[in-house]
This record gives sequence, structure tokens and C-alpha cells, in this order.
Amino acid sequence: MATITLTSDFGLADYHVGAIKGIILQIVPDVRLVDITHEIAPHDVLGGALVLREAWRAFAPGTIHVAIVDPGVGSQRKIILAQYGRQYLLVPDNGLITLIHQISPPERLFVVANEALFCQPVSPTFHGRDVFAPVAAHLARGLKPEQIGPETNLVNLLELPVEHLQDGNKLVGRVIHVDRFGNLVTDLSADELRRFVRKDHVPEVRVANRSMGPIRVTFADVPAGEPVAYIGSAGFLEVAFNQKRADHELSAGKGTAVEVV
Amino acid sequence: MATITLTSDFGLADYHVGAIKGIILQIVPDVRLVDITHEIAPHDVLGGALVLREAWRAFAPGTIHVAIVDPGVGSQRKIILAQYGRQYLLVPDNGLITLIHQISPPERLFVVANEALFCQPVSPTFHGRDVFAPVAAHLARGLKPEQIGPETNLVNLLELPVEHLQDGNKLVGRVIHVDRFGNLVTDLSADELRRFVRKDHVPEVRVANRSMGPIRVTFADVPAGEPVAYIGSAGFLEVAFNQKRADHELSAGKGTAVEVV
Amino acid sequence: MATITLTSDFGLADYHVGAIKGIILQIVPDVRLVDITHEIAPHDVLGGALVLREAWRAFAPGTIHVAIVDPGVGSQRKIILAQYGRQYLLVPDNGLITLIHQISPPERLFVVANEALFCQPVSPTFHGRDVFAPVAAHLARGLKPEQIGPETNLVNLLELPVEHLQDGNKLVGRVIHVDRFGNLVTDLSADELRRFVRKDHVPEVRVANRSMGPIRVTFADVPAGEPVAYIGSAGFLEVAFNQKRADHELSAGKGTAVEVV
Repeated sequence: MATITLTSDFGLADYHVGAIKGIILQIVPDVRLVDITHEIAPHDVLGGALVLREAWRAFAPGTIHVAIVDPGVGSQRKIILAQYGRQYLLVPDNGLITLIHQISPPERLFVVANEALFCQPVSPTFHGRDVFAPVAAHLARGLKPEQIGPETNLVNLLELPVEHLQDGNKLVGRVIHVDRFGNLVTDLSADELRRFVRKDHVPEVRVANRSMGPIRVTFADVPAGEPVAYIGSAGFLEVAFNQKRADHELSAGKGTAVEVV
Repeated sequence: MATITLTSDFGLADYHVGAIKGIILQIVPDVRLVDITHEIAPHDVLGGALVLREAWRAFAPGTIHVAIVDPGVGSQRKIILAQYGRQYLLVPDNGLITLIHQISPPERLFVVANEALFCQPVSPTFHGRDVFAPVAAHLARGLKPEQIGPETNLVNLLELPVEHLQDGNKLVGRVIHVDRFGNLVTDLSADELRRFVRKDHVPEVRVANRSMGPIRVTFADVPAGEPVAYIGSAGFLEVAFNQKRADHELSAGKGTAVEVV
Repeated sequence: MATITLTSDFGLADYHVGAIKGIILQIVPDVRLVDITHEIAPHDVLGGALVLREAWRAFAPGTIHVAIVDPGVGSQRKIILAQYGRQYLLVPDNGLITLIHQISPPERLFVVANEALFCQPVSPTFHGRDVFAPVAAHLARGLKPEQIGPETNLVNLLELPVEHLQDGNKLVGRVIHVDRFGNLVTDLSADELRRFVRKDHVPEVRVANRSMGPIRVTFADVPAGEPVAYIGSAGFLEVAFNQKRADHELSAGKGTAVEVV
């Protein structure tokens, strides 16, 4: 039984996710459907890319990942299918693939073009139901990716700030996600921090001119209510307050600067 | 394997949806459960009817749809089972069936009455777990609808405003749903608009005395931030702002008048 | 096919729940996953315990329940596996088990300790993915609980106020949960009320010096907009307003006192 995962910004209050599942199940009744999340902030392509990378890492080969954060639906933007061995990723070509692309470029890329697979008439505002759902379902039934559309080697990637080093002696990253507990996820990766930190040196993490202390292992390394910086489960530096919300304590949010000095 | 879909206003923060699934799986372990949504606004029967219609259209014959938006739980309101070939709909008899009824009246209707199927004792405030769940599960196991209760030809329908034409030269509809992106879904259907619009005439959509322009195909037909009217994926006129929230831009919500002139 | 249920405070906006499912499915592809809820209020162990008890009661023997409300993740708190015949409960040892423990103490308790089962390296902030998920998956594949870790007879339970009787003539309970409809769930159980109420006596329910009337059967026993007290589907006294929000009407929330006099 194939597995299709679904990631989107559709929310769970409308009929959209249900309709996508109905169409998939009409075409391939014996598939496993797994919701990653449908609560990506509306149109937040970078937020979707981050979630998608973590889902990607957790699932077995043979999974088809469908991700729809698609402010350009109905425009000339393409839909692309990326193949990685027996793993597939079906996304609008708007940069949603970026963070997976950084860790593993696809073996082959295709532009979704075979309209015979689509639900007709295709709604210009809901490609999730009429394009993504049937294409993913046909893949799950064993359709070859060559039958989806022509191969390509062009893909749009988000431009991420790659230069975090400033004045030769500090890293300046940004908050890219605030999780449900108010913890701040930054774009400073464990790899980058490892290269930056010298052996004889304990770096200090600072947000809005307040010290978050050194980089620790977990929340429980500080008393309740105290700030703590650590490498989160996604491999990025995070800033939290043990059992409090860091976003409230620091008046911080997406885009807030986080320094390692 | 039968499919049961679930639509309700129970939300996802409480135990209710989990309990319903547990009871269904006790009776019929090899069923597929699909959540449509549990985030219908509390007691919003019309909102539930709209979602249900779209789920209905997307799923294959052989599906059992269970929908619970039930402000009258525990009162004398009936629970009805509607049969359409191999497709079933199990709902409180409070109008939730209305929009499906408009597109396809059921072949047969039954009043749920066979108490031997229920989980005893029946909680007077949670028929979802104690009545809807076991009845749907027994249907999924192959119970005949005649064994659920007596046939009926009575069903309660919502009274919807059917007359949108005013002064012979404009349609006045209402916003019936605001989606996650702030887009406004109206009760003006594509069919009705087609009948209204003459060949030599480009109609203008107006909300709160502001022009939304002509009826276009999709968001991307206007620049970011601009208003746009189009036929949405559910077949109704919608009003949006490309990549902005129309509800905020227009201070509009459920019930706001939308004119086509 | 085994069933694993998931209850947590992770929310549905992040990648956490998706990652947990991916890991489980890698280890045991033919399992049924059922979400109870992931919207337990962050760190609300008592709220989680209440939901867990109701999920527990609705599912068949043979189910593995995984519940993660875990403010102490990464600290020295233990993770415990409780066995009840063919039913399992996997939880942090922080009291989350308390309300199930009241109705049925486990046959055997184990401390999760077999690190060979974990996903390595174990993230100190996300045991859900790296410890709970693989342990539950291996159980679903048939691993014996003895292989998870050593047996124990120690378990942490929440200290709940057990003495509700005051002045010999009234019960004073507390609101322990506000549901999606604004209904107030108290910690006064149907059993306790039965013992308290004498035959010749109709008790009155009071909140904030306002009378909610006698204990009725359901919302529909009062006109729309009126207050009503009743035994809810979880077996506790609840206070509601028919088709209104009791929390707003009474300015009440978690911790508010509810008297039966």
C-alpha cells in the first residue's frame, strides 16, 4: 500500500482537504493518507518548506509527498514532480521544494502537464483537488513519472540569506518559525554553529540585547521561567523559555534577529 | 473496505472525535475513516451543509457520510439516514441535508430508531458517540437500511433565500462562508449567474458600494492586493483580494450583501 | 492490524505529529493510526488526562494509546508503559495516567529503557519522534513489554482535590475543562453526586452566586439562552447555556468553583 502525505495552508475548517482525499480515494482506494499539517500560515512558502523538510526526513522511501502552499494558483506558475528513488514530491514551482533541495537534490524533475489525468473541468482556484490529487493518486497506482509530463532541469528556489557571519566575530540569524509553545526556531543550523564555535570559546546567544545564555541541550537545563538556547529537533538553533512563551517574553516573532557572539 | 467520512462542529481539542472513531472501530475494524472537518462553527447548520455538499461530490459511491452539527441533541429532533444508491448520509433532521437535497434528492429516507444498535446508556448530550457512530459502523458492516428504522418521506430543509433578483436588473446575494484566506463565498451559483448575464453585457460585482470589477477566472487575473470576483471551486460566486483578506479589506462577513449589476 | 492512538499538546501547525507518524510507519507499515487530539493546552497534564480517559473507554482491547503532554522532556522524568491485558498506554511519568489509574490500575508497569529501540541520536526536545514513536511501533509489531524495559510498581499521580464536601451540606467542585461550545466540565462525578443527593431533596447548582437550576438531563431541557446543569458524556457535572457559551455568560474558566447545594 502506497502512502501519500499532505501538507498545505488550506486549514481544517473548510471542505478542501476532504475533497482532495475523496478524489484520491476514488482513483486509488487502497492508499494510506497521512496529514502532515494543513495549518501552514496562508501563503507562507518558507514555513511550508520547513515543515516539508522534517516530514521528508521521517518517512520511508516509497512515500509520495504532496505539498500545496500556492499563492500563484491559476497563474502561469508550474507544478513540478521531483523524484528521489522511490520517493516523490509534488509541489507548485514556487520555492516550496527549497529546503529539501538543500539536503538532497532530486534525481529527476518533471513538469506536470498531462491534462488527461486531471479532474475536468479544472477549477482555476483549486488545483489541489483537480490537479495535485489525481496526479498523486495515479502515481500511487504505479503510473511512471514520465507519463506525468516532460522532464526538466529548471526549478525555482527561495533566496535565503546565506551569510550569517558579521564583523568576523558573530553570527546573526533570523527567526523563521514560532511553534505552538512560543519557541523561536532560527535559520542558524547546527552545522553552521559547529563551524563557528572555537574550542576555547563558549558562545552566548542574544535576542533584543538580552542574553539567552550559552547553547544548552534542552529546556530542562534551566529552571522554569528562564531563557534557554539549544539545537532543536529540526537541527536549527532555537530560543525558548522553560514552560513560558519566548515570543511573548521577548516580543519576538518571525524575522527577529538572533545573535551568537 | 467501506469508507466513513466525518463532518462536525466538535472541534479537535476535545475527546469527542476520538471517542466516535473508537466506537466505530470496535464494531467494524476494517473501515476507512476520513475526517472532512470538525471545525464547522458551533451550531452553524448552513455552514455544515455547504461543506457536506462538497465532500459529497468528491467521494465515490459506497461512502457513508456522517455529519453532526446538532444544536438540538437530546431534544425530540430525529436522526435521519438518506440513501442514494450505495451512498449514505446520516444526519440530524435539522436541515443539514439541504444543499445535497437540492442537487440530488435521496432514493429513500429512514428515521433512525433501532435502539438495539445504540451504545447504552445513550448520553443525552453526545449522540455522536452513542447513536451516529454505531449506526454508521453497522451500515459499513453491511446492515440493510431497513434495519435502522422505518422509512419516511418527511425531511426538514433550511429555508434559503431563493429570490436574488431585485428591481429586475440586479442580483443580490449574501456571504454564506468566509474561508481561511478571508475569501467571501456567496450564495449566488454559477447557474444563476449564467441565466442572469446577457450576451452583450459585462456584469459588475459590488460589495459595500465598492466595485470588485467583472467576474474573472482566478485571483491571478489581478495584481497582488487588488479585488477580484470569480466562480469558486464550490460553484458559487466568491469575492477575494489577491494575497490579502477580503473580509478585512471590506469589513465583511457572513450575511454581507454582494450585488451583481 | 494493530491500532495506535495519539494524544498530545503538539498542535497541528508544526511538523511534529507528521514526523511521529512517519517514524511509526517506517517500523510498522500495516498499523492503523488514530488521532485523538493534538490540541491539549500546552503543558496541561490534567487536561490531557481527561481526554485520555475518554479515549481509553471508547477503544477496543488491543489498542496502544500514546499520550505526550510532557513539559519535562529531556529532564530525568521517566517514560512508562502500562499494560492492561492486550491494551497499552505509553506516557511520560508525570501524572498523565492519573484518571485512567482511578478507574483501572494497570496489570503491569514498565519503565521505558531499551535504547536500542530508539531513533538515534535522540533529540533531547522531541522524545515523541525519537522514543515514543519507535517504542509504540515495536509494540504494535508484537514486541513483548518486558523487552521495553524493567518492570516497576512506582508511578506518579496528580494530586486531585478529593474532598468536595464543605460544611456538611454542599459540594464544591472546580471547572477542569472548557469545551469548544463554552460548556464547563467540572470534577464532580456522577457517582459523587449520587451519594450526596438525598431522596427528598432537589439540589441546586450554583456558579458565581447565580443559580443554574437543578441537575437536568440535557441542554434541550431549557429554552435557548438559559443556563442548564447536567451530567456530561464523560460522567462529570457540566454547566452550559443552551446554544450560548457558559464561559462567556459566567466569566468562568478553568478553576472556577461550582457548588451543589
